[in-house]
Amino acid sequence: MTVAVLTGVPGVGATTLAEHGLEELSERDVEYEVVSFGTVMLEVARDEGLVEERDEMRKLPSETQRDVQRQAGERISDMAEDANIMVDTHCTISTPEGYLPGLPKWVLDGLQPDVIVLVEATADEILFRRLDDETRERDFEGTEEITEHQEMNRAAAMSYATLTGATVKTIENSDGGLEEAASELADTLE
Amino acid sequence: MTVAVLTGVPGVGATTLAEHGLEELSERDVEYEVVSFGTVMLEVARDEGLVEERDEMRKLPSETQRDVQRQAGERISDMAEDANIMVDTHCTISTPEGYLPGLPKWVLDGLQPDVIVLVEATADEILFRRLDDETRERDFEGTEEITEHQEMNRAAAMSYATLTGATVKTIENSDGGLEEAASELADTLE
Amino acid sequence: MTVAVLTGVPGVGATTLAEHGLEELSERDVEYEVVSFGTVMLEVARDEGLVEERDEMRKLPSETQRDVQRQAGERISDMAEDANIMVDTHCTISTPEGYLPGLPKWVLDGLQPDVIVLVEATADEILFRRLDDETRERDFEGTEEITEHQEMNRAAAMSYATLTGATVKTIENSDGGLEEAASELADTLE
Repeated sequence: MTVAVLTGVPGVGATTLAEHGLEELSERDVEYEVVSFGTVMLEVARDEGLVEERDEMRKLPSETQRDVQRQAGERISDMAEDANIMVDTHCTISTPEGYLPGLPKWVLDGLQPDVIVLVEATADEILFRRLDDETRERDFEGTEEITEHQEMNRAAAMSYATLTGATVKTIENSDGGLEEAASELADTLE
Repeated sequence: MTVAVLTGVPGVGATTLAEHGLEELSERDVEYEVVSFGTVMLEVARDEGLVEERDEMRKLPSETQRDVQRQAGERISDMAEDANIMVDTHCTISTPEGYLPGLPKWVLDGLQPDVIVLVEATADEILFRRLDDETRERDFEGTEEITEHQEMNRAAAMSYATLTGATVKTIENSDGGLEEAASELADTLE
Repeated sequence: MTVAVLTGVPGVGATTLAEHGLEELSERDVEYEVVSFGTVMLEVARDEGLVEERDEMRKLPSETQRDVQRQAGERISDMAEDANIMVDTHCTISTPEGYLPGLPKWVLDGLQPDVIVLVEATADEILFRRLDDETRERDFEGTEEITEHQEMNRAAAMSYATLTGATVKTIENSDGGLEEAASELADTLE
């Protein structure tokens, strides 16, 4: 079965695109199970008795967090024995200390993705989508930071691909182009 | 001896550049043997009794393909005990599922290249060269896709370099600049 | 303790920025020890009886150089048991054979950095700073080469991050913006 990783900077609309893409795939009789990497990490940490709530996760020692990440990668890979899996996660996370890789080596070793999808849009489109989305609190980033973040995601994705042999697919999720992007996603994952 | 990897997107003219560069090197009494990574893979697969014809290669299970790739990397590395080797291959291959790394980790582990050459040109130049080349069937890619492909190749090459310590050399193969580019290639590989 | 790696192309002003940033950190009662990766390599090579002078380093066989690099990474990591360490080095080095990774895998395995800082500026700013600096002999590079070098550094840094889990922080060291950049560096390393 296929392990696909779906990523995109905040505001690019990756989750909505995934819904439409998977609906189209379903019409073609191809089914994917969507899992959030963060949620699987939380499940692992709970099973290990490390935390009870999601908020406690980031208080874990860095070594423990890595072990939880590693186990989450393996758990998702196990799920892929019975079903196609789409992993909803970040390629890199923009933090005050810089871009944090979402799929470091110890995750990739277990996860072994087949394809990494980078959902992209122009920096302007992303900026306006963020401004429109009043439900989420976000640190303000300008178009330069968004452009940089997307560039870093591409570089990180090719590094992930080198370690695993995964392909890296960019899909443009332009304003007014959701259905076209959803078809492209469906073609990629079929 | 040196293991050099020569790469470039389709239409950039890497093969022609290699011929001119190696001719100039030969005049400087430096000899390279050119091997195509795909051809060595085919030889490995034949020796293992896995295939008879090239077309059968892509029908091999993914695990078997990886093993063949790995062995091809080692075989080329063995050749380099007696001769300088230039490996003709792709940095990444543009497929419907995205950019596939041409030199994933298990190839690099055996191949251990000393230098990775990225032959580049402007997207416009590449587009027109593809349009002029009526002998090859190619999926149409516009200048945006070509630009993206070259960016992905750079990112992939730096990832290959991180794993092996190889240097990454970009050489601009501009219209009318073949001899200049050939000299630059010769200087790099001398 | 933290292991931070500070990098930037020649002329970007990384060393001056580090001085100002560490001064500001010191005012916040956070102390870093600065070590030059090249100097630690020289110490390792001397301790091993391999060389007496710095000039002899590049005459060492390539395998020996890698071993010295590896040991230097481990030695710096050991220093970080007692102090925060800022490693002054290059992300990639521009050589006639191409971009050489400053932190190949065998260095990263020992060094295990927490954050990789890329000090950047526009290619024009860097070009003019190089022209102003008459004390150093440098091969002439135009703005295109500088832009390419900074792009390659970003790609390399994300590859380093994938292997280690380090974050990658870009800091713009613009003309007239040294104090702002120094504050950003201090915030990153605090």
